[in-house]
Amino acid sequence: MKVLITGIDGYSGWPLSLHLLQRGHDVAGLDNFVTRKRVKEVGSWSATPILSFAKRQEAVRKHLGKELRFYKGDLSNYAFVREVLEKERPEAIVHLAEQRSAPYSMIDVHHAVRTQVENITGTLHLLYGIRDVCPSAHLVKMGTMGEYGTPNVDIPEGFFEIEYRGRKDRLPFPRQAGSWYHWSKVFDSGDVMFASKIFRLRATDVMQGVLYGTRTPEMVDNSLLTRFDFDEVWGTALNRFVVEAVLGMPITVYGEGGQKRGFIALEDSMQSLRLAVENPAAEGEYRVFNQFDAWYSVGDLAELVKRVGEEFHLHPTIEHPPDPRVEAQQHYYNPVLENLPKLGYTRTRQLEDVVREIFRDLIRYKRRLAARKHVLMPVVQWRDADNRAHLADRAGPAPHPSPAASGSSEGAAQGPSGSPA
Amino acid sequence: MKVLITGIDGYSGWPLSLHLLQRGHDVAGLDNFVTRKRVKEVGSWSATPILSFAKRQEAVRKHLGKELRFYKGDLSNYAFVREVLEKERPEAIVHLAEQRSAPYSMIDVHHAVRTQVENITGTLHLLYGIRDVCPSAHLVKMGTMGEYGTPNVDIPEGFFEIEYRGRKDRLPFPRQAGSWYHWSKVFDSGDVMFASKIFRLRATDVMQGVLYGTRTPEMVDNSLLTRFDFDEVWGTALNRFVVEAVLGMPITVYGEGGQKRGFIALEDSMQSLRLAVENPAAEGEYRVFNQFDAWYSVGDLAELVKRVGEEFHLHPTIEHPPDPRVEAQQHYYNPVLENLPKLGYTRTRQLEDVVREIFRDLIRYKRRLAARKHVLMPVVQWRDADNRAHLADRAGPAPHPSPAASGSSEGAAQGPSGSPA
Repeated sequence: MKVLITGIDGYSGWPLSLHLLQRGHDVAGLDNFVTRKRVKEVGSWSATPILSFAKRQEAVRKHLGKELRFYKGDLSNYAFVREVLEKERPEAIVHLAEQRSAPYSMIDVHHAVRTQVENITGTLHLLYGIRDVCPSAHLVKMGTMGEYGTPNVDIPEGFFEIEYRGRKDRLPFPRQAGSWYHWSKVFDSGDVMFASKIFRLRATDVMQGVLYGTRTPEMVDNSLLTRFDFDEVWGTALNRFVVEAVLGMPITVYGEGGQKRGFIALEDSMQSLRLAVENPAAEGEYRVFNQFDAWYSVGDLAELVKRVGEEFHLHPTIEHPPDPRVEAQQHYYNPVLENLPKLGYTRTRQLEDVVREIFRDLIRYKRRLAARKHVLMPVVQWRDADNRAHLADRAGPAPHPSPAASGSSEGAAQGPSGSPA
Repeated sequence: MKVLITGIDGYSGWPLSLHLLQRGHDVAGLDNFVTRKRVKEVGSWSATPILSFAKRQEAVRKHLGKELRFYKGDLSNYAFVREVLEKERPEAIVHLAEQRSAPYSMIDVHHAVRTQVENITGTLHLLYGIRDVCPSAHLVKMGTMGEYGTPNVDIPEGFFEIEYRGRKDRLPFPRQAGSWYHWSKVFDSGDVMFASKIFRLRATDVMQGVLYGTRTPEMVDNSLLTRFDFDEVWGTALNRFVVEAVLGMPITVYGEGGQKRGFIALEDSMQSLRLAVENPAAEGEYRVFNQFDAWYSVGDLAELVKRVGEEFHLHPTIEHPPDPRVEAQQHYYNPVLENLPKLGYTRTRQLEDVVREIFRDLIRYKRRLAARKHVLMPVVQWRDADNRAHLADRAGPAPHPSPAASGSSEGAAQGPSGSPA
């Protein structure tokens, strides 16, 4: 199948391209490299040294024997969107090209606006582009389980049948997001649902859990590794906990740690997205997939990381700094997972195994982590007015790039201070 | 009370300023005059000749003996928002400064993006501005009944108590909007709800029905009239029907006419907004008011306009061009109206009386209507790819501005081709 991946240079875009290529699909991608730039702006870098995109394409040719087409550009430019769609005429588009960090969106008013404007604009441009260029293409749109918030009832997959005041209807499940970023995903969901109705587009809206993991089976060489962010703005909870353990720092659980979230291993997320691509929605159909392997409380994950860390002779403690976010500390959580299993999804990775794998990979890149350890502690406060000032304070005295980390091949050879990471 | 009105130059912003001034409030406003410009862009103008804002301020001084402070500027400029809030330190902000036309948002991809980006950005700027400058100010945000769509159950005021799979919660009522514009209002609602939670702001989100009417009691002179749009892009159903009848054109009901919507007379909308202002939400409270006087099917409204038209010796027929929108032609509709009555809201205007009043006013401005009659028929199709081309065709051969219409005072004196209208 001809697939276009927007945001192909990212944490999940890159492994998705490898996975789809290995499954025999014809893959092209686009990216504006803004995550590389913005991670640098908060004084951090990827734990894994990642190559320039041209070198990534070479590595794919060399190690997988496949061609990967690439377009550099921005979804905010509608002419670019049209041009790529006209050249590619994809049968499926996996849309991952969005500002993806909740803390980034909470830095200040400008980051809030930028996040929502960028994400909505890119999605609208894609929706119109599909309508005008390739109307039978299937859009797989990356959303987040965070759109739902933490209601006191089960969380269905996008829609629910309810009875209210004696009448029945099937309605979109109410969204209660917890950051400007999460709201931008809610807004995208509304726009995609509406476009599928008026333009008769095929759409799958993926409510993804928090990703974890450093690698997928297609990464047969270090030059094929994906990025791995660990700073407070771009890293996610479980990934960041392992980094803290590797660095001998306390594992920082925001608040009580009773917050439950759906999580999914990077590899199983690739499986899910592939299943969505290979089983397209019908014409005019808007369907929602919840996508996670299980839900965990943040506190339980910290305990797991601590336990696995012991195997690596690390002895992390767990700390509970005040929660910078505005979120329920204890709550009911029971999301439904039915649509993906119906397409054949089965969980292949167990949490503890993946955590062990993350430890192994990160220990190899410990010097890259150590050089940026100051970016781990939370600075961005959901309620605060001065986040930008606090972040600037920290980004200022960032240590000079350290020499190449040990244990990596081509990636590290061109080094941490080489191509943007 | 110190009140700031954003979008004070608009159809409802202007009468709200007059109403609040007459009730003894201290009123300031801001506007960027973009509606004046955009109505001109589609080849139309206001049926009522409206004055420049400086002359409007003079008219307020002369006829009401009040001072009205004004700031020209755009909510997309955060520095401007901060500056106005710092100068005014309002106790209440009524936010009406948004792109307000559904057809405009459906013209093409750029109008879709512009609508959502402008509306979301303006609201986010206000939310942060309030947090940083006047955190105890009460935000009254104009939304629309159209956010809810037409579900097969009763429509509560923003939230509903439901039981789902054996558990209960109070959740936001699901939104199913019918245009990019209406979705932008849904997005604003999400942002305002979230801001009230994290910043502890006071907020009232007004789900307003379709407005109708030419005047409010404070318009004691023609120089105080508000704008009145009748073209297919900027006019609303009932207002446009009367214009068609006055011009001896068929009344055009899109599709079957079974579509039901909540409506409210301009004067009663002013009453509602004043009640919201005078009874602020509590700190951290996000409350939703449905705001309409009754709901009607579009077909029934056309029949009413036809009947009242007969009193004026007009004999309109009713036609049913294909519905350019994607909407249910027959559906259940039962929105709740409880919160405003609890604050003392009582309907003061009856539909038929207001329709009669609109006829009287529009007959006086018949020449202004006749000069722009080509803008009435629907061109913007919800599904279409070529709306911009069709609109350009029509805007091109627009007739030259006609001489000043009869029956108006200062407004018409400076004339249809005078200040932007």
